[in-house]
Amino acid sequence: MQLQAKIQVDSGLIPGNSDRFKRQVEFLLEIDRLKHTFRQTILLDRSRNENSVEHSWHIALSAMIFCEYAGISGVDLGRVIRMLLLHDVVEIDAGDTYCYDEHAGADQSEREGRAAERIFGLLPADQVQDFRNLWDEFEDAETPEAHYAHAMDRFQAFLHNYFTQGQVWRQHGIRRQQVVRRMQPVERGAPLLWDYVRTLIDDSVQKGYLLP
Amino acid sequence: MQLQAKIQVDSGLIPGNSDRFKRQVEFLLEIDRLKHTFRQTILLDRSRNENSVEHSWHIALSAMIFCEYAGISGVDLGRVIRMLLLHDVVEIDAGDTYCYDEHAGADQSEREGRAAERIFGLLPADQVQDFRNLWDEFEDAETPEAHYAHAMDRFQAFLHNYFTQGQVWRQHGIRRQQVVRRMQPVERGAPLLWDYVRTLIDDSVQKGYLLP
Repeated sequence: MQLQAKIQVDSGLIPGNSDRFKRQVEFLLEIDRLKHTFRQTILLDRSRNENSVEHSWHIALSAMIFCEYAGISGVDLGRVIRMLLLHDVVEIDAGDTYCYDEHAGADQSEREGRAAERIFGLLPADQVQDFRNLWDEFEDAETPEAHYAHAMDRFQAFLHNYFTQGQVWRQHGIRRQQVVRRMQPVERGAPLLWDYVRTLIDDSVQKGYLLP
Repeated sequence: MQLQAKIQVDSGLIPGNSDRFKRQVEFLLEIDRLKHTFRQTILLDRSRNENSVEHSWHIALSAMIFCEYAGISGVDLGRVIRMLLLHDVVEIDAGDTYCYDEHAGADQSEREGRAAERIFGLLPADQVQDFRNLWDEFEDAETPEAHYAHAMDRFQAFLHNYFTQGQVWRQHGIRRQQVVRRMQPVERGAPLLWDYVRTLIDDSVQKGYLLP
C-alpha cells in the first residue's frame, strides 16, 4: 500500500534540531496518505467512493450530533472524538477491509496491529502511548466511550448505504441478517438509535436494497 | 454551489416521528456535501487538491499532536477540535475562498454568515446554538482556544505548501510578506511553532517557492 515516496523532514531546519518536534511533523505529514484510502461506502450523491479521512471526519461530527443517544450519560465526548479521528490511520498500511469480506477479515487485526506499531511509532514516545491507548481502546471496544464510538462508526456508514438506495449492498448481495449483525454496536453503544436502524433495515428489505 | 439534490428524510420512518431526531439526521446527511468542496492546497503527493473535509480532519489531528505548543497551557483541546471539525461547514454554500484572493475575500464573511444560518439552522434549536457558538468563537478569534485553532488551520496548509515545493504559491506568484502576514495566527496561537515557520519561509524564498 506504500505507493507514495516518504516526505523527508530536514532536521537542519528544525529549531534546536529537536528530535521530538521532527517526529511530530513527520507524523503529521505521514497521515496525509490516509486521504488515498478508499472505502466501499459511496458519497450520498453517488459520484464516488468515500475515503477513510472523510469517513473519520463525518463520524466525529456524528458523535457531536447524537451524543444524547449514547448508552450511558456522562460519556467523555472529547475522548470519543479523538478515538474516531485516529481509529482508521492504520489503513494507510493495512488498507480498508470491506466489513462483509470474511476472507480479508481473517488477518485484518494482525495487519492493523503492525500498521499501528509503525505509524504511531513515528511520534515521540509519550505520544505513541497516548495515541496507541486511544486506538487500543477503540479496538478493544470495552469502555462506554469505545461503545459509543463504534456505534457512530457503523451508523454513518449505514445511513450512507440506506440513502444511496443500498447501491453497495445490492452490488455485493448483502442480506438483512448480515446488516443486523453488523449494526449490533449501535444497539449497544447508542441504544436509542436502534429502533431507527431496525426500521430502515426493514424498509431496505421491502425496497430491495437488501436481500431478505 | 448547491449542485446536489437534497436527500429527503422520511418522517414516517422516524420512531415516534420526532422532529428533533429528523433534524439531526438531516444535518448529518447535509454535511456530506462538504466532501465536494476543494481547496487550493494540494495533497503531499501532488495528485490532486485537498477537500475541506480532509483539511478539517488533518487540522483536528494537528491540534492533538501539537497541543504542547499552544500559546497558554490549559487550552480546552476538546473545544479546539470541535471548532476545527465544523469551522469549514459553511463552505458547502459559500465555497472555499483562496486566502490570497482579495476580491473574493471582500464578501466572504457575509456569504459565510448566511451559510452558517442555513446549515446550522437544520439542527434542533439547542444544537443550533451550541454549533453556532463554536463557529462564532472560531470566527471571532478572541479566546485562547480559537487562537490555537487558527494556528493549526494555518500551520497544516503551510506545511502542505512547503512540502510540495511551493507548487501552489508559485502558481499564484505569492510573496514572502503575504505568507508572513497569513501566518500571524501561528505566532499568536502556537508561538513555539513560529521559529519553525519563519525558518521554512526563509528556506522557501531561497529555494524559489516564494517570491522575495
